[in-house]
Amino acid sequence: MIVCLQSIVSSSKLSRDGNEKRMDTSHALKAKASADDEHLSAGIGKSTIVDTVPPSPPSSSPTTASPTPPKSHISFLLKKQSSLAFPSTTTLTMSSSNAPMPYATIGTNWITTSWIHACNQVPESWTLHSVYSRSQSTASTFAAQHNCKTTHTSLDSLLADPILRAVYIASPNSLHFTQARQCLSAGKHVILEKPATCTSKQLDELFRLSKENNVVLIEAFRHIREHNFLHLHKLVNEDKVLGPIYGASLPYASYSSRYTNVLNGETPNIFSLDFGGGALVDVGVYPVCFAVALFGTPKSQSYTPTICATGVDAAGVGTLQYDNFGVALNVSKAYSTSSVVEIYGEKGTLRVNGTTDISSIVFVDAKSKEEKELADEGKCLKVTKPDVNMEEEVREFGRIILEGDEQARQRLEELSRAIIKVTESMRRGAGILYPADQEEV
Amino acid sequence: MIVCLQSIVSSSKLSRDGNEKRMDTSHALKAKASADDEHLSAGIGKSTIVDTVPPSPPSSSPTTASPTPPKSHISFLLKKQSSLAFPSTTTLTMSSSNAPMPYATIGTNWITTSWIHACNQVPESWTLHSVYSRSQSTASTFAAQHNCKTTHTSLDSLLADPILRAVYIASPNSLHFTQARQCLSAGKHVILEKPATCTSKQLDELFRLSKENNVVLIEAFRHIREHNFLHLHKLVNEDKVLGPIYGASLPYASYSSRYTNVLNGETPNIFSLDFGGGALVDVGVYPVCFAVALFGTPKSQSYTPTICATGVDAAGVGTLQYDNFGVALNVSKAYSTSSVVEIYGEKGTLRVNGTTDISSIVFVDAKSKEEKELADEGKCLKVTKPDVNMEEEVREFGRIILEGDEQARQRLEELSRAIIKVTESMRRGAGILYPADQEEV
Repeated sequence: MIVCLQSIVSSSKLSRDGNEKRMDTSHALKAKASADDEHLSAGIGKSTIVDTVPPSPPSSSPTTASPTPPKSHISFLLKKQSSLAFPSTTTLTMSSSNAPMPYATIGTNWITTSWIHACNQVPESWTLHSVYSRSQSTASTFAAQHNCKTTHTSLDSLLADPILRAVYIASPNSLHFTQARQCLSAGKHVILEKPATCTSKQLDELFRLSKENNVVLIEAFRHIREHNFLHLHKLVNEDKVLGPIYGASLPYASYSSRYTNVLNGETPNIFSLDFGGGALVDVGVYPVCFAVALFGTPKSQSYTPTICATGVDAAGVGTLQYDNFGVALNVSKAYSTSSVVEIYGEKGTLRVNGTTDISSIVFVDAKSKEEKELADEGKCLKVTKPDVNMEEEVREFGRIILEGDEQARQRLEELSRAIIKVTESMRRGAGILYPADQEEV
Repeated sequence: MIVCLQSIVSSSKLSRDGNEKRMDTSHALKAKASADDEHLSAGIGKSTIVDTVPPSPPSSSPTTASPTPPKSHISFLLKKQSSLAFPSTTTLTMSSSNAPMPYATIGTNWITTSWIHACNQVPESWTLHSVYSRSQSTASTFAAQHNCKTTHTSLDSLLADPILRAVYIASPNSLHFTQARQCLSAGKHVILEKPATCTSKQLDELFRLSKENNVVLIEAFRHIREHNFLHLHKLVNEDKVLGPIYGASLPYASYSSRYTNVLNGETPNIFSLDFGGGALVDVGVYPVCFAVALFGTPKSQSYTPTICATGVDAAGVGTLQYDNFGVALNVSKAYSTSSVVEIYGEKGTLRVNGTTDISSIVFVDAKSKEEKELADEGKCLKVTKPDVNMEEEVREFGRIILEGDEQARQRLEELSRAIIKVTESMRRGAGILYPADQEEV
């Protein structure tokens, strides 16, 4: 305990924020103590540890000052990422050493497998340390699949492990908030699958907690870290290949086999109001994130849903309103589209194969109709289904945490805050309300 | 004059509407007299008549009662069209004989040429009688191109011709209202190119006038008369191949060469507020009409425009809100799309090649992804560019007028009224205001 407390004070001394930071830290002390108490009283003893990764060496404490974080969402992604100013500590759990981070997983479905496979491609940043599931059998099976020797059926137990530095959370949406809160309070970095939380209030609270505990919280949007998305961003915002932007059409509609369950009278989590489900927050966040990352935060937004038997939106169409153009969204888990992404401008149209896994960016000249492929060939990383490509995000999130790149982290935080505000407004405006909408955080 | 007055009284006696109809007719007498006076004082003498079509034989006066017009917009198009109840008269101008109708054209651009070519395919209904243009040279050239021997440079002169029975109007949008008003007041049937008017008030007034003068006013939406659109309507609404409808995506976006003029600082009519231009009313009416004809009148609608230098919308995205689904619109004259029309339902997606000139309707099964072509092969009529296919509408509008099919006419009136209300709401909601918006009709 003493080490932990000292480490936070140490972090406070390193911070650039003066009194405000120290105020936050005083709250952190209480929260941290409380969390550790919980570990002592309830956590320890519920883990099944066969072996552990050796502790990381003591961290260095980079003090390079970062430039002021950019205000414009348009510049979220392409700012020079040279800052090393993210505050770090000297504890094991808070180390910013360059050693790979021992991480745990919460959730045992295909997306978690994808995450682990991606981390395996970036061994300099990530090492799978432990697996959590409420069921020992599920945890053991999943851990065995990934050559992981430590499992937990209690979050307290998982988080009491001082070697553990980060947690990847891919549980049902409605569990994200309480699980992330517990992880952050325990001083672990959190990579939280999208949608991070059910409400913007919850996200505010998680970011507050992450700062209080001097750890990183990142929402796992994989697509905006892809090489060709960043390339597209540059084409549109720096090279201005389209000239002034006139609009975009961002379809993300694919029939989900779980919608068959809905038609059969069942309520899968992702189609459940109680679990924070629905097409907008599940798949709609991809185009919303795509638009916010590319064009900035819209002035306003609207959504017309198709509500299914479970009460959530199985599909919907919407618009993001910008200063002089609109972005059309078509999101669905109940039907499929053959339409591709298009971005329109004065000079022509950019036809992109999708909002994720971009392998083709065709510029079509407005007048001549001539076409030219602009994507960087061979830069769309391929993975074996059912995996999805998460390598770039895994690499970047690892870098941000290990290098303490506060500027990059701040941009992702702003992006996540903007996205949840957009989707929350669309969702509530369409009358889709979660239990979390009624709750005080 | 006496013949005309008697004919209207005669029409009144034939009407099914009793007192209300007779009240209308009393107004008609004044309007008709006034219009005829104008012809006597200003009209005659401005025509250049080389030859004329012989007068039509006296009409029969069908009295078969029609069923009550359907209330639902969904049934606009597919109701049995057997009614012959449209009131007719015994005058030359008001004849419902089966002889081809001598018609005039207002407007001399490519769409008018298309119309004439289509009429030439339906000689049993239509015969080109005279051509109007403000410029004698333009009128003469255009008339010569179409083997027409009569030209007019004055509307009064054009309309004073008792042989003339119908006028096709394809002038700049903002002129439609006053020209149509004059034609209807003169007792001529009017086929008015879309968009019929700048405002719903103007359209109300034209329909009122058409009834007062016992003539037909039809807005020329060509696409919903096409064989494969009617087939699609049946597939969706009668055969219910999609099951419950989940939404639709209706793009209509194609770069217009006249947008190059806008970029060069000019203001072509179709990009002019004064002329009632803009992408929504010019091309957006196709998908709006498509949606209203297929799904009925939306509950509400919204539009996010891209305003160009001339003040109109060069493009925009919008949504039509229905009870449990939305229809996404993407309309543009400033950029092009490669996306096609899609209609979504519980059973799958119908992928249609466009809102006009439908040659392909592919059903894609939601679960199996199997595809099946459902369009009627060979039923998409081909014409030589720059013509567009107008044959079905020309045939149907001719039939409606000649057979006096009041039920079919009424459905088209309801459709036009619904469409202008939708586009007017979208346009005004987006702050695009025409001079006509400030005017009392």
